[in-house]
Amino acid sequence: MQRLRRTSQLLLRCRSSASGLFYGHQRTPYDSIKRPYWENNHLAFYYTTSNHMGAVQASVNVGLHTSHKIPRRSFSSASTSIQRSPLFSTLNSDDVSYFKEILGDKTVIQEEDRLLAANVDWMGKYKGSSQLLLLPKSTEEVSKILQYCNSRRLAVVPQGGNTGLVGGSVPVYDEVIINVGSMDKIISLDKVSGILICEAGCILDNLNTFLANEGFVMPLDLGAKGSCQIGGNISTNAGGLHFIRYGSLHGNILGLEVVLADGTILDMLTTLRKDNTGYDLKHLFIGSEGTLGIVTKVSILTPPKLVSTNVAFLACEDFTSCQVLGHVEGVRNPLPPSLHNFYVLIETTGSDESYDKCITPVSFIQI
Amino acid sequence: MQRLRRTSQLLLRCRSSASGLFYGHQRTPYDSIKRPYWENNHLAFYYTTSNHMGAVQASVNVGLHTSHKIPRRSFSSASTSIQRSPLFSTLNSDDVSYFKEILGDKTVIQEEDRLLAANVDWMGKYKGSSQLLLLPKSTEEVSKILQYCNSRRLAVVPQGGNTGLVGGSVPVYDEVIINVGSMDKIISLDKVSGILICEAGCILDNLNTFLANEGFVMPLDLGAKGSCQIGGNISTNAGGLHFIRYGSLHGNILGLEVVLADGTILDMLTTLRKDNTGYDLKHLFIGSEGTLGIVTKVSILTPPKLVSTNVAFLACEDFTSCQVLGHVEGVRNPLPPSLHNFYVLIETTGSDESYDKCITPVSFIQI
Repeated sequence: MQRLRRTSQLLLRCRSSASGLFYGHQRTPYDSIKRPYWENNHLAFYYTTSNHMGAVQASVNVGLHTSHKIPRRSFSSASTSIQRSPLFSTLNSDDVSYFKEILGDKTVIQEEDRLLAANVDWMGKYKGSSQLLLLPKSTEEVSKILQYCNSRRLAVVPQGGNTGLVGGSVPVYDEVIINVGSMDKIISLDKVSGILICEAGCILDNLNTFLANEGFVMPLDLGAKGSCQIGGNISTNAGGLHFIRYGSLHGNILGLEVVLADGTILDMLTTLRKDNTGYDLKHLFIGSEGTLGIVTKVSILTPPKLVSTNVAFLACEDFTSCQVLGHVEGVRNPLPPSLHNFYVLIETTGSDESYDKCITPVSFIQI
Repeated sequence: MQRLRRTSQLLLRCRSSASGLFYGHQRTPYDSIKRPYWENNHLAFYYTTSNHMGAVQASVNVGLHTSHKIPRRSFSSASTSIQRSPLFSTLNSDDVSYFKEILGDKTVIQEEDRLLAANVDWMGKYKGSSQLLLLPKSTEEVSKILQYCNSRRLAVVPQGGNTGLVGGSVPVYDEVIINVGSMDKIISLDKVSGILICEAGCILDNLNTFLANEGFVMPLDLGAKGSCQIGGNISTNAGGLHFIRYGSLHGNILGLEVVLADGTILDMLTTLRKDNTGYDLKHLFIGSEGTLGIVTKVSILTPPKLVSTNVAFLACEDFTSCQVLGHVEGVRNPLPPSLHNFYVLIETTGSDESYDKCITPVSFIQI
């Protein structure tokens, strides 16, 4: 997907989630992280040493020697020359004053360190130069922000946990960053149907922990679950480990509340499993990366938690009869030098451990 | 859902399927059918006596005595006064000539009997007065029809099997009826992934029969399956018996080919299980009743056919612990006078009959 802007009136982009770290929503803070980013065609790093929430204590920019300069790889359209549109305004002190008025001082962030973290994506491939980070606490605040930015023609970029790998959650230029991580309330869970309603800033792993106590699981699971947020998951149509079993978010998301670029709040927060009243607009916001609006609330169908989990590890001779575990470069190979060409790792969950265990691995493949 | 038109440039509406009967796609023809419809606030009937495909041999209009006039029940916005928009043109002989030129004589239907059947919905609650029924055989023909109708401002109504119960598949006034029942080719089935590609006019039961031989089933099943068509199922976001098990069409439909009101063909016929390239526009056409475009081809994920089927019939004392079988008025009660307040009928399908049978009914409820 192109990283170039797709605008209606304002730039709206969105991605999932890592830098909840900097906004007080990180549940598993790292003690010291070296994160690379690109600065004038040099690989640079900044260091975060954080033992409490919300702190970025050091930012060090280390240029490489010219002779060892690593050519910047172009993962997206960033390699082409993108010009900042003159149609967008530039932030001024009146704008900041207005945001402080509607949000309060503490959620209008201008500190350099926190801005640096919010301007860089998780992989350090993309770096923006936003001067303002906003942390709205409600749908109404998101609406007021977007309404104002629209009237002033200030570009914005929505941000979740900022764990995305394609730079969708960081500014290209000086867009105002709207991070929904402060909107992390669980609103309700129907314990009969498993329908969960929550705010977009809820961290995926927190939702899973909450649901596990009630006998349910989230229908999606991915590596970034400790930081990524459900709003970003939806905006990027995240898949993950449960995709084959529980299907796509288009099947599991029952309703959304979304704020459009002009501040209009679209309430599509139904909990009906099949709602045929009118056009099903919510699907436009699933996977559209925040370009059409910012997801603020979510209604999601969660499957029951199954009691039996089994893991099978299979060695195979050819590709056609199995799914292959990819080996990522630079990652330790957990296997000894091998006699087999392929391996398959299968995790099953079921309702009866004794039955699940008596199924042979061959049956797994046939299933 | 309102029956009033939601137009872009032309009227486009769509519903599933019964009058495949009249277009040669009915696989289980009834010998004699008495179908009621409303005529000037009188209940009228027409009779179809058909022992071969494509024949409607008799159409008899029987008005009731005035003293026994049954007041017309208003199931939808039809009770309000709907005026035919003067913006739409009226069909003339030049239009018919053009359609014969692009479709051939045999698929441009003007015979009164066949038009009568196509003008009335399955329940006989709604009756239009279309003078023309078109049976395109390809996406390109659908495109040419819509392009022409758009340029002439002729209103159209898409029609599948015409089994819908809310009058969505019949004209309100004199719209041109576009029935896609002739587009009933199965294009491909990936026997590894279970991804089926077919045309919109395929009858649901025929698809199921085809898939059963290959070890798969359609993820939806409903009473009208012998006549309803997959294009109508999608346009109406049909659910049915498999909904709880296999989820909604939003989760199972992988791709669509759609013709817009101006004749533009939208090719979204992907077979990727998770396709995040661009906006996922296909979801707008699922459940929008043909108002946005006519579905012409479908890519659908079909689950494996399971070998073990069991049916459990349970008697229960209260409502909260069970799902209740509704008793429809006028239908024979299959049970003797009962000692129990509630009954639950559960059908399970699984991969191992011996295991499935050893699960107690109590376990079913808990699951």
